[in-house]
Amino acid sequence: MINPLLACVHTFRAASLVGIAGIASIVGAAGLAGSARADEGLWLLSKPPAERLNATYGFTPSAEWLLKAQQASVDPGASGSFVSARGLVMTNQHVASDAIAKLSTAERDLIKDGFYAASPEQELKCKDTEITVLIATEDVTARVQAAVKPGSSPTDAAAARRAAMAEIEQAATAETGLECTVVTLYQGGQYHLYSSKKFTDVRLVFCPEFQAAFFGGDNDNFEYPRFCMDVTFLRVYENGKPYAPANYFKWSANGAAEGELVFVLGHPGRTQRLLTTEHLAFLRDVELPITLANLWRGESNLQRFAQRSAENQRVASEDSFGLANSRKAFLGQLEGLQDPAFFKAKQTEQDALKAAIAKNADLQKNVGDAWKQIADARNAAKPWFARFQAIRAALRYSWLNDALTIARMGDELAKPSGERLREFRESNLAALKAQIVSPAPIYPSFEQARIADALAGLAAALGAEDPVVVGLLAGKSPQERARMAVSGSKLFDVAERTRLLEAGPAAIKASTDSLLVLARGIDAENRRLRALSEDVLDGAEKDAYAKLADARFAVYGDSVYPDATGTLRLSYGTVKGYIDDGKRVPAFTTFGGLFAKAAERADNKDYALPARWIEAKSRLDLSVPFNFVCTADIIGGNSGSPVINKAGEIVGLIFDGNIESLPNAFLYRSNEDRAVAVDSRGIKEALKTVYKADALVAELEGK
Amino acid sequence: MINPLLACVHTFRAASLVGIAGIASIVGAAGLAGSARADEGLWLLSKPPAERLNATYGFTPSAEWLLKAQQASVDPGASGSFVSARGLVMTNQHVASDAIAKLSTAERDLIKDGFYAASPEQELKCKDTEITVLIATEDVTARVQAAVKPGSSPTDAAAARRAAMAEIEQAATAETGLECTVVTLYQGGQYHLYSSKKFTDVRLVFCPEFQAAFFGGDNDNFEYPRFCMDVTFLRVYENGKPYAPANYFKWSANGAAEGELVFVLGHPGRTQRLLTTEHLAFLRDVELPITLANLWRGESNLQRFAQRSAENQRVASEDSFGLANSRKAFLGQLEGLQDPAFFKAKQTEQDALKAAIAKNADLQKNVGDAWKQIADARNAAKPWFARFQAIRAALRYSWLNDALTIARMGDELAKPSGERLREFRESNLAALKAQIVSPAPIYPSFEQARIADALAGLAAALGAEDPVVVGLLAGKSPQERARMAVSGSKLFDVAERTRLLEAGPAAIKASTDSLLVLARGIDAENRRLRALSEDVLDGAEKDAYAKLADARFAVYGDSVYPDATGTLRLSYGTVKGYIDDGKRVPAFTTFGGLFAKAAERADNKDYALPARWIEAKSRLDLSVPFNFVCTADIIGGNSGSPVINKAGEIVGLIFDGNIESLPNAFLYRSNEDRAVAVDSRGIKEALKTVYKADALVAELEGK
Repeated sequence: MINPLLACVHTFRAASLVGIAGIASIVGAAGLAGSARADEGLWLLSKPPAERLNATYGFTPSAEWLLKAQQASVDPGASGSFVSARGLVMTNQHVASDAIAKLSTAERDLIKDGFYAASPEQELKCKDTEITVLIATEDVTARVQAAVKPGSSPTDAAAARRAAMAEIEQAATAETGLECTVVTLYQGGQYHLYSSKKFTDVRLVFCPEFQAAFFGGDNDNFEYPRFCMDVTFLRVYENGKPYAPANYFKWSANGAAEGELVFVLGHPGRTQRLLTTEHLAFLRDVELPITLANLWRGESNLQRFAQRSAENQRVASEDSFGLANSRKAFLGQLEGLQDPAFFKAKQTEQDALKAAIAKNADLQKNVGDAWKQIADARNAAKPWFARFQAIRAALRYSWLNDALTIARMGDELAKPSGERLREFRESNLAALKAQIVSPAPIYPSFEQARIADALAGLAAALGAEDPVVVGLLAGKSPQERARMAVSGSKLFDVAERTRLLEAGPAAIKASTDSLLVLARGIDAENRRLRALSEDVLDGAEKDAYAKLADARFAVYGDSVYPDATGTLRLSYGTVKGYIDDGKRVPAFTTFGGLFAKAAERADNKDYALPARWIEAKSRLDLSVPFNFVCTADIIGGNSGSPVINKAGEIVGLIFDGNIESLPNAFLYRSNEDRAVAVDSRGIKEALKTVYKADALVAELEGK
Repeated sequence: MINPLLACVHTFRAASLVGIAGIASIVGAAGLAGSARADEGLWLLSKPPAERLNATYGFTPSAEWLLKAQQASVDPGASGSFVSARGLVMTNQHVASDAIAKLSTAERDLIKDGFYAASPEQELKCKDTEITVLIATEDVTARVQAAVKPGSSPTDAAAARRAAMAEIEQAATAETGLECTVVTLYQGGQYHLYSSKKFTDVRLVFCPEFQAAFFGGDNDNFEYPRFCMDVTFLRVYENGKPYAPANYFKWSANGAAEGELVFVLGHPGRTQRLLTTEHLAFLRDVELPITLANLWRGESNLQRFAQRSAENQRVASEDSFGLANSRKAFLGQLEGLQDPAFFKAKQTEQDALKAAIAKNADLQKNVGDAWKQIADARNAAKPWFARFQAIRAALRYSWLNDALTIARMGDELAKPSGERLREFRESNLAALKAQIVSPAPIYPSFEQARIADALAGLAAALGAEDPVVVGLLAGKSPQERARMAVSGSKLFDVAERTRLLEAGPAAIKASTDSLLVLARGIDAENRRLRALSEDVLDGAEKDAYAKLADARFAVYGDSVYPDATGTLRLSYGTVKGYIDDGKRVPAFTTFGGLFAKAAERADNKDYALPARWIEAKSRLDLSVPFNFVCTADIIGGNSGSPVINKAGEIVGLIFDGNIESLPNAFLYRSNEDRAVAVDSRGIKEALKTVYKADALVAELEGK
């Protein structure tokens, strides 16, 4: 039962991030208005920024170059690439860490100790790991739009498009045997058919120790300079044999030089660069401050629990990291929005789009005052927004959420699928039930503490005399109420949850399990506020943003890139340092810097190097570049992205963005935003000298 | 320039605590309505709870017993006691830590390493340390009240009382040569003349290592079980010779047994047990949630700064501890107020007082609807309260506060003293200037980070488009604005601050130092909100609370104890464990438990034992009691209080309260509230075996 907040935000996937702040409710749309800034853009490979690349860098990617880039890129849940003719895939350790954890046992902790298969027989077959490769794309806009009968209502038009998309997908899958999906781009301005090949036999070849992959821990997360070996090699098999990809990236002999043009291929999850300035002001002054206050409170309470014992520390560690990571990410967004220059740039964009629309009477008529519609909807939300966020936070940070899901099954499953709350619809039910009956360990004292904190947080936010709070507490303190609910419940036993789910809605409804009783106390108010959020607020905004997106596409067409949609994109930029707090941050770090940092931070165990690294120090060339930054426009989902040069050779591996880049969901800034990568030379030197992975190095070198 | 938030809250002095939440504005008043709960009370030694003690415990303290208790108690800034005929004083290490730090040098860190003077010549003379002993008290109520002419206005009456009090003090000082103060008790129900002897020659005899005194660090602060050697011995000298006190406490041969009656003498700083339930509801639902949100944010930002380097960690450590300590204290208060049972008990008290007042027409007429007056004043404060707290937090957590103080000198010092803001009046000016020209180190990068956080916090709380925020930021981001203000200022140089202060108000007013310019941007709004808080809110409440206090004294007289006023009080109770989260917490811990805890928490350096303790383990009797809890009613200011038995012998030394006791500013609860003490047997065993302080042990044993 993964808490959505805690789901691998660190894999740098925006989808997880935005879900928390409730931004997810808005479907992102369209690229940047007007001309994109230097090196900006998450470009379709079918519409590369050829002119801009040529004008700025004198380079035009050929069709062959682009096809190779597309087919050598892979999707292992985030980003990755083929790096040998024998199906070798490179991605981040933190992208593969779930798979690595599942291959670990009490005796063999691969997260802690790392792993290297010196020969194919030693490779470990991953559980539940899939990798897909995008084989082909096709613009099917005309076919999708043709399905809409002239004069259709918006609802009918949407249904017709959905039907056409499903038909196209089915036909393509039947014809090719590939996984075929119609992707909606430019908020409906274009529809592309993406056909991908899926591999389910994926084996672990190499991963470093966690301490090497995530050197500096949470302290250095989103920071730079960095010194991380955040790399993992997997191998894709087909029919029991290493897969021979049609395309793969060769290893660069020399890596990238400062100022060199580089490209990033990957699956950026979500950008929202179309948000109006009024909406951004709401994020800045209302939503993010509330989100952060809840995170700060959550972190402090978690720390209070964790401090009590080493075991508590262990139990809370994953959530601690998740909260810290989210807090940093949202604080970065807020810092961006609080910068008047940032805001002015967004205003300029908006004004330009507004002016362009105003020049076209039809467009203007269609758009109307969409900006005001959004601003009004946000203003109307202010009276209930904090209350809803408080309830969401109370649920999110505790097992109350699971209890509420079970309790609601009693009501929801008795209804027809179409009338249920979204997550209970038939299409999602299997996944939801699987979450509920997950055998993942539950720690009662941890859950008790989190429920107590949830109840106390609600009491503080709503007021202790609020009827919802009074009903939940039933005359007890939050701590005592949580103790009673947890000690009286059987639901922490997976067998009991399974039994209850199998017994069906009526049995769930009849259950008086103490956690269900507690959760029911928040049900009605949560439904009421959800309806305000999803029906009233999102409804008004979706309509307005759809109009804006249409207008933007009409004005700029596909001369701009579409907002990120989790599908394959090309970014580009140069290897380049930046200025932080008035000081120059160099583009590259070295192994020498790694050891210097470890010595400097001997006070902090997050900077403790694995024994293998300490032992190898004297043999390592300390001048070899280890990590570097470049100006390529990336966002969550780009973790594991290959960085390639003009020749299509690997020069690096994206694993993070700097803290300045966190507001780039809204706006890319070439002066400050940087993608952080492991240098290909650093990877090779470490594989050779630290890990003695000679066979792997030989394979990367094409030998 | 001590940040008020960070001022030794850990010395368990309520004055520091309440100042933060702004509760300090209300003058606390009168004891608990009706009959006090078992073991409740902060009793005057001149009005001990003789009947209750006799009824419950069959013990009646004699006049001799009480005089000895009074004169053997000392005030070293918190609490303490004479424990030998040669002027030996016992208090907490954390009470004496400022003095110990001032005796430390780069070569000799007494905080870290501890200290023991095996002979008088080795004792170290403390700087700036004073100790006072209360020699006599006298009820002067009649004399104070006699000064008020019949028919005087309240203002005239207050002035007449103040004049009478000053006259009484002066006469008494002239007569006795002692420090004489008239203390206002029961919010004006009684006036007592307190005459104290002051000693300024105080020498350090013994202190343990910080790691032993504060074993478990912040983790265990306010927690129990505990294992802390939080003790320090000082010696009072007079005329260059050890002072021979008229009374001192002998060391108990056997310590206290579970269930035994014990007494605590000390200087509890402040209780507010008269606050109305409407006022408490405001604290619970408005004030404390805001205070905690600011603390959580402050802690997280501080941690973010501290994580960057070991030096940052060092620079931020004192503030980190202060914030964590405050957060724990306020969270404990909030948890108490959020407990419906706690609130109901306060309601019952209030209803009883209301009913008693209603029975007396004169009283009722005088009180009027004081409760509603307070509730209305609080309700009226809601629109501006969060805004004021945000501005206070921005000032408190950064050097902006110092800059604002300097900037305001330009305006305030040009006015007559009586028209200035309170802190600039002539009577306080020397202290204020001394703060400003303190040579304490200032770390620019730290202050820059804190100012950036202060500005960002203001932008989040007020909204980035609020005129105050727009004015402060001047088009820059909070981070850049802070960088500019700090890098452009000369004020971090104490010579420059001294020069500016000496140049006078006009020069300060003319200065365009970048930090002064920044601080001026918050001046007007801060003054406006301060006036709302101090004149409007506090004004209305002071009047209402004065009426309530008068009425309460009329109803209950001195059969109840007065709220704490920082003066000497007697508490009592039994040595007794309690139930925490359904589990029994035993009254005593032992040395065995200390070593077990250190082993269990080997993961955490706050539990690392000093080498001397590890080395002594095999020689220590591990079964000896180390710390214990008792039901005595204590609060901040009681740090260092002796715990004595019926025979007037030392059985322990108060150093903390458990977390359950934190809301006891409002209500004492005998089931949960516990005072935490070092056991006299543990102190002796450690002195003997760990520190080999044979001479000191012999002195304690009266040899």
